[in-house]
Amino acid sequence: MEHEREPVRLEPKVAMGYLIHAEYGRVAFVVDGLPVIRPLNHAVVDGEIVVYTHHASAFAEAVKAQPGLPVSYQSDEIKAHSHFGWSVLVTGTATDVSDHPRAAQLGRQVQSWIDRPHDMVIAIHPREVTGLRLSITH
Amino acid sequence: MEHEREPVRLEPKVAMGYLIHAEYGRVAFVVDGLPVIRPLNHAVVDGEIVVYTHHASAFAEAVKAQPGLPVSYQSDEIKAHSHFGWSVLVTGTATDVSDHPRAAQLGRQVQSWIDRPHDMVIAIHPREVTGLRLSITH
Repeated sequence: MEHEREPVRLEPKVAMGYLIHAEYGRVAFVVDGLPVIRPLNHAVVDGEIVVYTHHASAFAEAVKAQPGLPVSYQSDEIKAHSHFGWSVLVTGTATDVSDHPRAAQLGRQVQSWIDRPHDMVIAIHPREVTGLRLSITH
Repeated sequence: MEHEREPVRLEPKVAMGYLIHAEYGRVAFVVDGLPVIRPLNHAVVDGEIVVYTHHASAFAEAVKAQPGLPVSYQSDEIKAHSHFGWSVLVTGTATDVSDHPRAAQLGRQVQSWIDRPHDMVIAIHPREVTGLRLSITH
């Protein structure tokens, strides 16, 4: 019997389920033709990935400059010793929803791990969701 | 006495030290004007971030199409309960070094967590390295 570290593809709904339980990930976007990547805390609300940031952050500036900014969002949890776990990739568009009537409520759902002033709520609308689970297959 | 979750900025050399001990991260790059992000295993060799991938992967295709491809690379280790840890961001350029005399040796230094055929060694040359450590300050 051979054990292989074969990645198992996740259905989009299952992948979004992992994201709901994860508390953070990384957003990638393009500024002046160059790739930028930033770690962020998130919450999943009504199928959208909600992040809470400062209006002067690189991500906030990019979203203000281009509403509907194309983004990729990635999150994973891989165990340190076994290297088993999951990874989820989302592509979509990011929009400033700070003026939304529910913005304050949405922002509070994002548990930030850094004590910094946050004043801008951004929602990432997923267009494509893919994911892999890493486990032993026989 | 107040405890704050204040991020501490890391010196580039310290940040690269964290990357050396980490075994994986995520690379972001631009394809057709859109941001792409992929998780990868890496090794740090002579100050460069070396990854080993399949020639048909999205990252490999982008590097073949544009040697010296601008990339961002991110890695972190955040503890699940305390949320303490570190995050490192690298910007730089990615080049196919599969034809390098030491390519096979470099590739073997990257411990892959997925059993897939790997045949392309890519080196990311860092231009800027920044990092944060998340801990309690008094």
